[in-house]
Amino acid sequence: MTFGSSFLSMLMATHARLLIVLFASMSLSAPALAQADPLPSWNDGAAKTAITAFVEATTRPGPKFVAPEARVATFDQDGTLWVEHPMYTQLIYCLDKVPAVVAKKPELATVEPFKTVLSGDHEAIAKLSMPDLEKILAATLSGMTVDQFDDEVKKWIASAKHPRWKRPYTELAYQPMLELLKYLRANGYKTYIATGGGQDFVRVYAQQAYGIAPEQVVGTAGGIKYGYDKNGQPTLTKEPKLLLNDNDAGKVEGIHLVIGRRPYLTFGNSTGDRQMLEYTAAGDGARLAMLVLHDDATREYAYGPARGLPDSKVGTFTQALYDEAQKKNWVVISMKSDWKRIFAFEP
Amino acid sequence: MTFGSSFLSMLMATHARLLIVLFASMSLSAPALAQADPLPSWNDGAAKTAITAFVEATTRPGPKFVAPEARVATFDQDGTLWVEHPMYTQLIYCLDKVPAVVAKKPELATVEPFKTVLSGDHEAIAKLSMPDLEKILAATLSGMTVDQFDDEVKKWIASAKHPRWKRPYTELAYQPMLELLKYLRANGYKTYIATGGGQDFVRVYAQQAYGIAPEQVVGTAGGIKYGYDKNGQPTLTKEPKLLLNDNDAGKVEGIHLVIGRRPYLTFGNSTGDRQMLEYTAAGDGARLAMLVLHDDATREYAYGPARGLPDSKVGTFTQALYDEAQKKNWVVISMKSDWKRIFAFEP
Repeated sequence: MTFGSSFLSMLMATHARLLIVLFASMSLSAPALAQADPLPSWNDGAAKTAITAFVEATTRPGPKFVAPEARVATFDQDGTLWVEHPMYTQLIYCLDKVPAVVAKKPELATVEPFKTVLSGDHEAIAKLSMPDLEKILAATLSGMTVDQFDDEVKKWIASAKHPRWKRPYTELAYQPMLELLKYLRANGYKTYIATGGGQDFVRVYAQQAYGIAPEQVVGTAGGIKYGYDKNGQPTLTKEPKLLLNDNDAGKVEGIHLVIGRRPYLTFGNSTGDRQMLEYTAAGDGARLAMLVLHDDATREYAYGPARGLPDSKVGTFTQALYDEAQKKNWVVISMKSDWKRIFAFEP
Repeated sequence: MTFGSSFLSMLMATHARLLIVLFASMSLSAPALAQADPLPSWNDGAAKTAITAFVEATTRPGPKFVAPEARVATFDQDGTLWVEHPMYTQLIYCLDKVPAVVAKKPELATVEPFKTVLSGDHEAIAKLSMPDLEKILAATLSGMTVDQFDDEVKKWIASAKHPRWKRPYTELAYQPMLELLKYLRANGYKTYIATGGGQDFVRVYAQQAYGIAPEQVVGTAGGIKYGYDKNGQPTLTKEPKLLLNDNDAGKVEGIHLVIGRRPYLTFGNSTGDRQMLEYTAAGDGARLAMLVLHDDATREYAYGPARGLPDSKVGTFTQALYDEAQKKNWVVISMKSDWKRIFAFEP
């Protein structure tokens, strides 16, 4: 196919805007840039190679090619995309909201577990039982409209700071994972979050923090009730009722419910992601399942108990999960050795 | 901005593929084609004008502009995108599957409502009660893996024919609505189905019939159970348990669950779509809510009971809904006068 240059000149004169578009796509496809490392915060090694080899194999013509519309990648959030220690961010949000809840219902001030949370006694708070925590979740994550909830989370996430780094939680997204998300999207993969955290909570900041749109966030979801406010305007109210527990097998069920496709790539970091990895890996053709191992106490945290790392209730990565990963060729990402840089703010 | 023609020649030589891309986008943006009617099966009138004026206002710079990522349009399926009379297609599927269910469980042959369905007595079948129908739905829509179900629906939808037109149901998609879906997508709108029908059922053929991907189908969803087959492979099994009843207020709740955004446009045709229209229209900025009125007994069906049309249990459009539409500026589409052509196969 050839085109006369006079025709091109005419084109240039009349379609300057299109040429700008052309140049934009050109700069993306120029060989020099295409060969630039899309994952500069990853050290060379098995993990990085597994990712780039997979993406190349599934996006170029060949036996492992995956049709663009089927390119789905799912990511756990806590401990996979951002820091989850010393406590899940959403749980900190819930504890932070307790004073506001008690201000509206003063009778709660003397009732457990609210009394303990108000005391500010960190040790006592850390010892709260699951039923107690559930009471706090129900009180702070339901009873308001989704619009009110969105506003509250938006304000909180813009101002709250992590106790160690004294930075907003959204700045504690892992830089290597942000590069990975962009790299996958640049290769036609739709990137989804599949989180045990609240779907409504994560949707508030996922676009800003990860470039992931609300409709691509699958998470634990409570009941939603349609109704009307005092002006007769429709409202959606968050109910203290669990609709989808997006953990363990629930992650796969949530993926089926919201996406309706089996992922080609899945990234997790704990036992709560096991079934999602298993389901992903069991698909036909090429599939990639990876787990982030937190083995870097200096730059982030070290916990397992896999590989003799300290045990943790938050983001547990058992030795059994590690052994299963080895057996099934799920790739374990060592934070310490695979990640050159953890956070964007690091020098 | 200017470019030397020698540079362009070089470009032409080295980037032939990009030029093809350029030409492809050129033909899309060429003025002659842009002015071609994107909705040729719609007669000129208030309905067509409402659509084109809305799309222009929300996609061009101005006070009603909608950011591309927020452009969401939701469509009811039965009676809005395809024929729903004399009976919902999925219900016909369920009745058709009864012999296969009974073959596996012969004891059902003498038990109601299966006995009546097996009798083939159309009048008796039409009189089955809701609890009876629910037994048939449970028996034919659950108990199998999602993969088995997909296969069964795929086979059925490829071979089953509508009793009146003797054509596959997917050919009974309304041509004006197919044009509308394409027109909206060409203008950056994501098109979603929000159906009272089964989410898993509609997902099987939505891409083929409407160009709508599985992840853009919101529908009635049953419980899904993660488990393993006899070879230890992960399976998802459909359970006889209702998770989301995607009708009435449930449509809005389903939209929140799966999409997490309020639609800018919504299309329905019955009382089951009322809350979805109300919720859409209550959003800020420009919003468009429309209802298809089946007032064409000759080319399709006529039912209401709005406007004195015959009453119907399937796709009921009450006079109250019609009055509300008038009051709230929801646009009613008259199948008879607004649609030049109903089906693609018509001359």
